[in-house]
Amino acid sequence: MEEKLYIIKIGGNVIDDEEALAVFLADFAQLKGHKILVHGGGKSATKLSKRMGIATQMINGRRVTSTEELSVVTMVYAGLINKNVCAKLQAFNCNAIGLSGADANCIKATKRSSKPINYGWAGDVDKVNGPVIQVFLSNNMIPIFCAISHDKNGQLLNTNADTIAAEVAIGMSEYYNTTLVYCFEKKGVLLDINDENSVVEKIDTNSYQTLKSDGVIVEGMLPKMKNCFYALEQGVSEVIIGSDQLLGDMNGLCTRLKL
Amino acid sequence: MEEKLYIIKIGGNVIDDEEALAVFLADFAQLKGHKILVHGGGKSATKLSKRMGIATQMINGRRVTSTEELSVVTMVYAGLINKNVCAKLQAFNCNAIGLSGADANCIKATKRSSKPINYGWAGDVDKVNGPVIQVFLSNNMIPIFCAISHDKNGQLLNTNADTIAAEVAIGMSEYYNTTLVYCFEKKGVLLDINDENSVVEKIDTNSYQTLKSDGVIVEGMLPKMKNCFYALEQGVSEVIIGSDQLLGDMNGLCTRLKL
Repeated sequence: MEEKLYIIKIGGNVIDDEEALAVFLADFAQLKGHKILVHGGGKSATKLSKRMGIATQMINGRRVTSTEELSVVTMVYAGLINKNVCAKLQAFNCNAIGLSGADANCIKATKRSSKPINYGWAGDVDKVNGPVIQVFLSNNMIPIFCAISHDKNGQLLNTNADTIAAEVAIGMSEYYNTTLVYCFEKKGVLLDINDENSVVEKIDTNSYQTLKSDGVIVEGMLPKMKNCFYALEQGVSEVIIGSDQLLGDMNGLCTRLKL
Repeated sequence: MEEKLYIIKIGGNVIDDEEALAVFLADFAQLKGHKILVHGGGKSATKLSKRMGIATQMINGRRVTSTEELSVVTMVYAGLINKNVCAKLQAFNCNAIGLSGADANCIKATKRSSKPINYGWAGDVDKVNGPVIQVFLSNNMIPIFCAISHDKNGQLLNTNADTIAAEVAIGMSEYYNTTLVYCFEKKGVLLDINDENSVVEKIDTNSYQTLKSDGVIVEGMLPKMKNCFYALEQGVSEVIIGSDQLLGDMNGLCTRLKL
């Protein structure tokens, strides 16, 4: 039977909250079996940009990555956040290894076309290097990916962390039984946006259509759900959407997506 | 017979010069056999500190690493420089993997005592993780170390790049026939400081004593030479001091140190 592999993505709400991060990393360290962490860090990047006098431009919630802004995200994601997360996990005897897509050519991407919208040095993932990630996992190293990839021609690229997580999960599905976990602000997909506990516990292809036509899944959630089903179609066994506290009790309340 | 391993250290004079760096990285990529790169980046860190309004304090040529300054060096060394070097090497089909000491617990250090001089978050190397570095090398990955280590208790530490290079070379001498190469501004140890070509080509324990008593090796060079002989005594086969252009022709003019 294939071994299980968790790919867990955390966003800025955990990264920027020292206390929440400490709890999350302790839980992550405790999680049994193979695992990979993917982290964002947009809020910290925006803070540093401001301090350096660089104007941050966002279009549709995505960063426009100028050359200066690429330096900022490379410093913040691959340097400050990634290395601090690794050092903290090492203190829990979790053998973390921090990686960008350029490291060991783990994630190759292509610069996004400047049309219709010019996002600057933004990259879309072409290929996840499964064999090299397997070398890490089979030698008891826990990959910690930041959201920086490269084009194999010497250029770093800023890449959406949700997408990195999905592509890594898809790429590793050839070798492992993969579960992709998105940790965010809510406990899962909510039936009633005002009721934190109205979590839809299971969603499959059929109920997804119903939830959409019933208007439960709307606007902001649609691209995220589309990504989740794409990952499932490409070989990921299960996608979980939950809060950053889910790792403390993987049987706790969350939304589980399967085909 | 033991396989050969080069540990090559480059400093700010190469890192901060885009053209020189491109030539150096092309040469490094061409170098046959096992190799590890260690880089500094102090000048870039000082520049970023200035832009962020953080005062850089140096004592005896060494950075005093406040908490803010530690963030700066982590961003610049482990993020900006390390990842750009990796991306550029990947473009030359050199399978670079960027590492800090926290990654896979490669380099454990201890915070330097605050007495007699308080250098802040500066670390002295305790242990280089030979087995894990061997996993990288035996899987055709080329480690690129920045000068950041950790204390295994969750704290990153700023660590002298020359020392990191020496300690990695010493640590790997158990597994490989190691040559430690320091690339700096000059072609080697000069007999006449005003004559670039007056390089002392060979130095051993005896001639080192003579060079010292003859006043050829003075002040600034003494700690560097002391480090070199320490590395040799601890198992490194050869230490080479040369310019950043030496890698283009390893038979070129340089200073070779052996016991």
